[in-house]
Amino acid sequence: MSTKPQTIRGMRDLLPEAMILRRHIISTLTAVFEAYGFEPLQTPIVEYAETLEGKIGEDEKLIYRFEDHGGRKVALRYDQTVPLARVVAQYQGHLVLPWRRYAIGPSYRGERQQRGRYREFWQADVDIVGSASPLADAEIIALLTDCLTALGFRGFTTLLNHRQLLGGIARVAGTDERAAGEVYRAIDKLDKIGPEGVRAELLTSGVGVEAVGRILDLVLLRGAAADVLEELSGQLAGDERAQNALENLRAIIRYLQELGVPAESYTVAPRLARGLSYYTGAVFESVIETPPIGSLLGGGRYDELIGSFAGRPIPTVGLAFGIERLHDVMEELGLGPAVRTIATVFVTLFDDRLAGTSLQLARELRAAGFKVETALDPQEKLGKQLRYADRKGIPFAVVIGPDELAHSEVIIRDLRSGEQRTIARDMVIAALRSTSDQTLV
Amino acid sequence: MSTKPQTIRGMRDLLPEAMILRRHIISTLTAVFEAYGFEPLQTPIVEYAETLEGKIGEDEKLIYRFEDHGGRKVALRYDQTVPLARVVAQYQGHLVLPWRRYAIGPSYRGERQQRGRYREFWQADVDIVGSASPLADAEIIALLTDCLTALGFRGFTTLLNHRQLLGGIARVAGTDERAAGEVYRAIDKLDKIGPEGVRAELLTSGVGVEAVGRILDLVLLRGAAADVLEELSGQLAGDERAQNALENLRAIIRYLQELGVPAESYTVAPRLARGLSYYTGAVFESVIETPPIGSLLGGGRYDELIGSFAGRPIPTVGLAFGIERLHDVMEELGLGPAVRTIATVFVTLFDDRLAGTSLQLARELRAAGFKVETALDPQEKLGKQLRYADRKGIPFAVVIGPDELAHSEVIIRDLRSGEQRTIARDMVIAALRSTSDQTLV
Repeated sequence: MSTKPQTIRGMRDLLPEAMILRRHIISTLTAVFEAYGFEPLQTPIVEYAETLEGKIGEDEKLIYRFEDHGGRKVALRYDQTVPLARVVAQYQGHLVLPWRRYAIGPSYRGERQQRGRYREFWQADVDIVGSASPLADAEIIALLTDCLTALGFRGFTTLLNHRQLLGGIARVAGTDERAAGEVYRAIDKLDKIGPEGVRAELLTSGVGVEAVGRILDLVLLRGAAADVLEELSGQLAGDERAQNALENLRAIIRYLQELGVPAESYTVAPRLARGLSYYTGAVFESVIETPPIGSLLGGGRYDELIGSFAGRPIPTVGLAFGIERLHDVMEELGLGPAVRTIATVFVTLFDDRLAGTSLQLARELRAAGFKVETALDPQEKLGKQLRYADRKGIPFAVVIGPDELAHSEVIIRDLRSGEQRTIARDMVIAALRSTSDQTLV
Repeated sequence: MSTKPQTIRGMRDLLPEAMILRRHIISTLTAVFEAYGFEPLQTPIVEYAETLEGKIGEDEKLIYRFEDHGGRKVALRYDQTVPLARVVAQYQGHLVLPWRRYAIGPSYRGERQQRGRYREFWQADVDIVGSASPLADAEIIALLTDCLTALGFRGFTTLLNHRQLLGGIARVAGTDERAAGEVYRAIDKLDKIGPEGVRAELLTSGVGVEAVGRILDLVLLRGAAADVLEELSGQLAGDERAQNALENLRAIIRYLQELGVPAESYTVAPRLARGLSYYTGAVFESVIETPPIGSLLGGGRYDELIGSFAGRPIPTVGLAFGIERLHDVMEELGLGPAVRTIATVFVTLFDDRLAGTSLQLARELRAAGFKVETALDPQEKLGKQLRYADRKGIPFAVVIGPDELAHSEVIIRDLRSGEQRTIARDMVIAALRSTSDQTLV
């Protein structure tokens, strides 16, 4: 192990080609987050273990725990939500609520490795802390719609549901309150095991045949948001908590319309359970049909977790983008920048005597905003320099030899086509701009 | 500990105001790194402990080691240089050398906490891997000069030296080869203990009186780069390695001139020792006079470390910016964005009926590139909404009440001065642009 260079399983290196897409995703998300007035927060990767414990249910066994030099029990953070709760309590006097904060960074879980699951993974979180208004929920959904659109996704659908609606469905179907948890868990598997699988599971867990039928009918409702809400309203008449949930969803949807979120981009989906135990209100996730990868992101309202350190409920709604998931899907769909490297122009060095002329040009190109790599060895043959630039995937190279210097000219070579042309020295920037605008980020 | 929200000592939360400066530093550095064609690399924060061990000398005791779930000996990375060495070996067939890579992220050291030292700290590293050319050293120095200038620093000086020059000084002064290490260590303390302190330390370690005098004379040479080089060349005549080092510095300086680096921004400083044991060639650091905080960054050529996993020397030159250091100094000098929050426009909600009109405006402002926070509760009094925005530090608020709606107008209020004016609805974007261009990032 000491001599073999390797990473720990489930923790990856991101080489430049992957990092270019990664950085594109993060900067796109950041621009939208900031357009909605969200502020950046960064918390340490290492926390006291006790800070993280007792918040996330049975997944707690995945927390990456260890003892530090001083014998303190510490852990790598499991998500960015529990640290947010800690921050909200720790800086109570300083923070002004409602607070829109975003956080982008790695978290850690001791997962067994499987496709698309990593022990070190990145999330981009947005949360509005300290508002119970349905407009806060709507702002988060408007934001995620803008984020997915800005990343290039088309035809995605955001599924909307409410925790109390699923409870209401269970209650109205005649199962007792304690069975509601079983209903959530069974419904959560709908995509994996299908309606008949859910039916079997509910029957096994003791829910009556008729109740199971009614639950499945309601849960599988599809259609325009307003139609689904109306149908549910009729079916759940008499269940006050369910009616409040429907009223809450109606208010969120009205705000979505006012915020200009396209009606075809979201739907009410009573089947949406969302695994996390801490949600208390609206829940949502965004899905695409192709590739069939499940959800792109998930979120919802959780009015208790954030206040758990502060000792009082602090209503909060938020979502987390899984960066690895976005990355994999965008790669599969061919979204994002189509470049393999950062530099767009390679400046060759004809020989030691002419190096200064080329370096002066490199300087001007950088000042003009180009990303420029220079050759480093003026003794190296020009052909070898150009082959290097081509292998790197740099699209253009410039050459100044004695002839070009004598005539105040520069050769621009398109390394992809092999075509080259000679341009007046003072036209180089304009010429590269006109070519590179079309092909480069 | 379970109820008190706190971070581990030496690991900090960065609240939005600090993060705004932090993000400005990182995006400024990234833009310059990419202008020079450097490619991003990200490696995991956790590495096998054996990967990190045996590379960094006596500081190795500071490595943050622990055992993971599987009983593996792992560690939080200590820097981004050793992981780079691992990557270079691990992807030998894939990477094209010379390779310009940058990496920005946290590293960890079990330091006792002191001012300006953290257990979790961020570095921004650039390295050119696989080139022995003095142009590679010059590109790194040109880059750091552009970085510091872009961050707003003025009057900084980059001190340049060469490892073999210090050795040559020791040799020519007549101390034996083994004492060279003592000379480095003593000279390294020059700023802290002064010339007389260095003299005392060298005498104690057994260097003769005359040799110490000669060492100090040479080490304290100051002046224009060319003059210092000439003086050293005469004084070190006959020491071949020192002459090669001087020749290397001359070549670097020639390239610096050709790259347009201002001559007043660097100097040759034979006193510069640089602590890290792995440097083999040119070394440099940048200093400012005020505040008196020592160096802003440091770097140099290290031709052996990067190849240590690959099993052959791979010439490399690079530098690391300490983000905490830059942050503290920029805060002290008042450099960077002068804003306290992300949003520049706050959109109020007059009442529930008019909320849609305001939200429509928020949407247009976001589409026009403004960073917009909306009020969330239309029942909240306007005065309270405005006080919230003012406490957050948002500079402008817009209000649409019934009168404004009736006349197709909008009120724009400058929350810093309290002044407000009424503007035609379709002039709002233009009006905010003309005010905010001067005051906002």
